[in-house]
Amino acid sequence: MMETPDLSNPALLPMGFVDLLPVEAEAEARGLAAVMDVFSCHGYERVRPPLLEFEASLLSGSGAALAEQSFRLLDPSSHRMMALRPDMTTQIARIAAVRMQDCPRPLRLSYAGDCVVIGTPGREGQRQISQAGIELIGPDKAEADAEVIALGAEALAKLGIAHVSFDLSMPVMVWSLIEDGFSGAEREAIIHALDRRDAAAVREHGGAWAELLLGMMDAVGPAHIALQKLETLTFPDKLRPFVARLRADVAAILARLPTARLTVDPVDFRGWRYHTGVCVTVFALHSREELGRGGRYLAGDEPACGLTLHPHAFLRVAEPLPRRKRCLVPSYMAQKDLSSLHEAGYATIASLGESSAMEQEAHHLRCSHIWKDEQPTPLPR
Amino acid sequence: MMETPDLSNPALLPMGFVDLLPVEAEAEARGLAAVMDVFSCHGYERVRPPLLEFEASLLSGSGAALAEQSFRLLDPSSHRMMALRPDMTTQIARIAAVRMQDCPRPLRLSYAGDCVVIGTPGREGQRQISQAGIELIGPDKAEADAEVIALGAEALAKLGIAHVSFDLSMPVMVWSLIEDGFSGAEREAIIHALDRRDAAAVREHGGAWAELLLGMMDAVGPAHIALQKLETLTFPDKLRPFVARLRADVAAILARLPTARLTVDPVDFRGWRYHTGVCVTVFALHSREELGRGGRYLAGDEPACGLTLHPHAFLRVAEPLPRRKRCLVPSYMAQKDLSSLHEAGYATIASLGESSAMEQEAHHLRCSHIWKDEQPTPLPR
Repeated sequence: MMETPDLSNPALLPMGFVDLLPVEAEAEARGLAAVMDVFSCHGYERVRPPLLEFEASLLSGSGAALAEQSFRLLDPSSHRMMALRPDMTTQIARIAAVRMQDCPRPLRLSYAGDCVVIGTPGREGQRQISQAGIELIGPDKAEADAEVIALGAEALAKLGIAHVSFDLSMPVMVWSLIEDGFSGAEREAIIHALDRRDAAAVREHGGAWAELLLGMMDAVGPAHIALQKLETLTFPDKLRPFVARLRADVAAILARLPTARLTVDPVDFRGWRYHTGVCVTVFALHSREELGRGGRYLAGDEPACGLTLHPHAFLRVAEPLPRRKRCLVPSYMAQKDLSSLHEAGYATIASLGESSAMEQEAHHLRCSHIWKDEQPTPLPR
Repeated sequence: MMETPDLSNPALLPMGFVDLLPVEAEAEARGLAAVMDVFSCHGYERVRPPLLEFEASLLSGSGAALAEQSFRLLDPSSHRMMALRPDMTTQIARIAAVRMQDCPRPLRLSYAGDCVVIGTPGREGQRQISQAGIELIGPDKAEADAEVIALGAEALAKLGIAHVSFDLSMPVMVWSLIEDGFSGAEREAIIHALDRRDAAAVREHGGAWAELLLGMMDAVGPAHIALQKLETLTFPDKLRPFVARLRADVAAILARLPTARLTVDPVDFRGWRYHTGVCVTVFALHSREELGRGGRYLAGDEPACGLTLHPHAFLRVAEPLPRRKRCLVPSYMAQKDLSSLHEAGYATIASLGESSAMEQEAHHLRCSHIWKDEQPTPLPR
């Protein structure tokens, strides 16, 4: 097909792809490094899967849900279709199951990288998505769920984001009720009703589970109240272990994070299709910006729990980072003097003699200091 | 077209795409961070362009040379073709010319990220290429060329790679002779002859420039010897400024890096098509591994000089990084105690009670220490 290049406006990027300019790009890189350092301190070892893989591998298993959101491209080498990763969890699960199958469990892995999604034409939204996350593979217990959430909180606190809310859910409960009790049009109707939190429609379409579903809808709120309300409901035998686990998860999280703000939404189920246990969405308390999400799932056939933070989002609510003072220096300065300025927190800008006067050049280059009398001297304004 | 998924072997990645496992992935991330920190200390500000752009923008100008190496994909949103970036220099030039056109010059920018190239089917080679680099945009002078090269040396030294060689060339000289003096089959013949360093063929096809080209071929070697030999040759007027600039570049580099190992190859011209001045390839002295490359070019209509380091390559020759000692700790340990262990260089691994005895679990999880009597205690072997 013919291209219609718009060379008159080379600034125009495809919808959802952006340049990060100096302040943002530096903040993203430093924020990512801080988060990855927290994960590393807790024994999570970093892996780095590639940006693209064969689609048969990348979009299988838990990746199938993201198939429609993935850019595909033909590999001229193998004549097989590849896909740009829309998410990294599938890749980490593959690495755990294949490359690191002989490593001891619990296996703690961390990752950071960019993902690409197709998005919805005509609607706003990032299509290149930065992710930084952890996966705890092996144990299936409340302490493991709590560890993942506690490390998310510690990582965000490192960025100065202390006021967050962890919204917990157990989507497998609603999915289980839907799959056992409803089929065809009735299934569509109850999904739609729950999705809209429409109590009248849930009562109308809920059949034998109407009371239970309405009770679960009513239990949404702060964790201790939600758990009390769930206590009064009559769950079928197969759901009772999930209610008990949710209670154990809340207790284990509060044991690690006594002041954590936890909410529970027992009917949050959309967008959590492959999860097998507790799920969590992390929000900034004031802006309600989503900072990350995660949950329990199967990595291959192993129990796993993970959390992914969204650097794009959390940088909007993080405290601004201190920037280096800028000191204009002569271009042939001794490495020793340069190093001591760097250690003292300065960026050194070498004068390339673009202006006749150093001071003028320093102003021009937005420097705060100038090297004078063998020391950094604040620039007169 | 039909897919033939090979689910029996999910470890099989497309040729040239690899997983980095814990030790490598951590080393790459820490190496990149160290390199970017050196650039930041010298006032280079980080930008982060997207992984893909419209091909009309990404593969224009200096990017045109890489068009054949680029994966293309259709944007369903705009119905225009996009390309995965095969290189980041074009993107940085676009950002400088458009997004940062009002920022003062010299403009110092740094970047780090992954690029993707199609590669040659059937031949080995990475297709996902990590890059970390700088661009110095504005000044066209030897001190600017030297600054870029000196920062490359400082960044590599930070990784423990002190023994490097900078191989300088000035490809515009050979290209100028070829374009002015040869056409058609004769041009092909002289390019082929120079490419093979075939003195007899250069003499046969070199026409009026045979003596000069042979003299330039003979001048390959350590910078001071090469410059002496070039001194004895008779260059046409339009090439004399390039010879003078090469001499000035060598002097400026040695002023900043008195012990630098510099070589000059005046007939290195292949693969340097859009460069307007000095070009440099950085090699590890012992392995001859290429660690980076760069040179002078036009960013839009502005003079610019840049250098790109290849993290994949330099990690193979860098000193191994010290790893955190691993200490098994109880899962409910006070944050204060955890933090002091982290500050003392330990990674803390929370016991999730997978083994009956902590010591056994610590061995199993490859820990070097265990938390005992309120302190990290070396694990008996």
